[in-house]
Amino acid sequence: MDTSQKHLNPKDMNVVSIGAGNLAASLIPALHESGNKIEQVYSRTIGAAATLAATVDATAVDDINRICTTADIYIISVTDTALPHVAGQLAGHLESKAQKDKPAPLIVHTAGSVSIDVIPAMHRGVIYPMQTFSKQRRVDFSQIPVFVEATSRDDEQLLVDLSETISADVRTLNSSDRRYLHLAAVFCSNFTNHCYALAEEILANHGISFNLMLPLIDEVTAKVHHLNPQKAQTGPAARHDKAVVQAHIDLLADQPHIQHIYKLMSESIAHDKL
Amino acid sequence: MDTSQKHLNPKDMNVVSIGAGNLAASLIPALHESGNKIEQVYSRTIGAAATLAATVDATAVDDINRICTTADIYIISVTDTALPHVAGQLAGHLESKAQKDKPAPLIVHTAGSVSIDVIPAMHRGVIYPMQTFSKQRRVDFSQIPVFVEATSRDDEQLLVDLSETISADVRTLNSSDRRYLHLAAVFCSNFTNHCYALAEEILANHGISFNLMLPLIDEVTAKVHHLNPQKAQTGPAARHDKAVVQAHIDLLADQPHIQHIYKLMSESIAHDKL
Repeated sequence: MDTSQKHLNPKDMNVVSIGAGNLAASLIPALHESGNKIEQVYSRTIGAAATLAATVDATAVDDINRICTTADIYIISVTDTALPHVAGQLAGHLESKAQKDKPAPLIVHTAGSVSIDVIPAMHRGVIYPMQTFSKQRRVDFSQIPVFVEATSRDDEQLLVDLSETISADVRTLNSSDRRYLHLAAVFCSNFTNHCYALAEEILANHGISFNLMLPLIDEVTAKVHHLNPQKAQTGPAARHDKAVVQAHIDLLADQPHIQHIYKLMSESIAHDKL
Repeated sequence: MDTSQKHLNPKDMNVVSIGAGNLAASLIPALHESGNKIEQVYSRTIGAAATLAATVDATAVDDINRICTTADIYIISVTDTALPHVAGQLAGHLESKAQKDKPAPLIVHTAGSVSIDVIPAMHRGVIYPMQTFSKQRRVDFSQIPVFVEATSRDDEQLLVDLSETISADVRTLNSSDRRYLHLAAVFCSNFTNHCYALAEEILANHGISFNLMLPLIDEVTAKVHHLNPQKAQTGPAARHDKAVVQAHIDLLADQPHIQHIYKLMSESIAHDKL
């Protein structure tokens, strides 16, 4: 097997998607629309593979051993839990079919919190588009920061070139720092969304529409583009207004799980403002 | 004293602002720009009163006993803690100078969590603009939902008319429901902003710019305009990906206050998804 990676033009690359979940359903069509060739889509469930494959002129497969061995890059987008097993199976499969005169393919994953070394292959890498993906929504990929990592300069350049076909903001970042990036993203995305869900739960008990919150939510978001979030902090806890904080805690007496979060967040905000 | 309130045209009303903080600094200029006459601005600190007064052609005062007694409406925007005392002082002052042939003025506050009855006056009310206000940012008042309350139909109509000079979304809401609205607003605004502040703290230790989070934050906000937040929930806790959740908890070993919030939010999200 030739272990040197030729510097391919991304437009000439054949891509296989391992996974058809939320991230793949956004990333793979973006790659397709930018002119990259999607060869195959694999999923454990053939229906999911077929749905995504149909949108990108690819074939669908639900057996790892039937994944084509001639692609240039394999992009694994599965849950972090499944990733070690799937990466191992795929690498073994490709290794067993390797041809002497063909460069070894590049296998990458798309997980924020998982090391590049979960992939047991010489040519391994990471393409981490930092965004929240839902199948119900298409996002504008050009605005999404994409973080890439590889073990060689050539592989890294190839991942940068490929990522730059879909995003205007491509950076290299190692596995260690990427974990913190992903952790911060959980706070900015998953936890803020959960705050919205809790607000909706509070309002639903009083017949008040959650939509009334949207102008407020929009302003908090707009503000953080211009003001450092710690400086932008407002509200009763930031003002050390103990009477309002206690009144809110009392209002949540029947919803102890929300009350617990209210207390902890308020203490943390008040501490920041000491 | 005549206790009946004449139905005034809001443009003919004289307004006095009691307070010159973040909310007053947004609300009072908005009223001024919509053609309402601002008579005086009171603050305990004359500098704060003078700064706001200068922008709305009003006079500044730092002694409650020197507040003019001829205005039609007094808008108290002080901290919730100071509100009972300030409202009592103001009502006493106005009562002591009341004239038989002049309708009693309307005294309102702007606090989400405080009952209308904190104001010891017959003509009392609430104007609650639900938004987060910082002096560094001007907001577009026309998009802000404003919730009003009064004890008589005439007073209520007057507050609706006045509020409609600055906002396209004016509603009536009683003190009891307004508390839950304010509580939900704390989750949507103060707690989400604190999540951003915690993310910035995590990233700062690794030399990563918080600005990288902005496309993600924008998408979470855009998504909640179209998808119910509980349905929009993504991330490791929503996927019950225990390995990632534990890895994140381990990364926060040196920041126990952030670690505590991470655990509680993740448990709450995972519970929602059971």
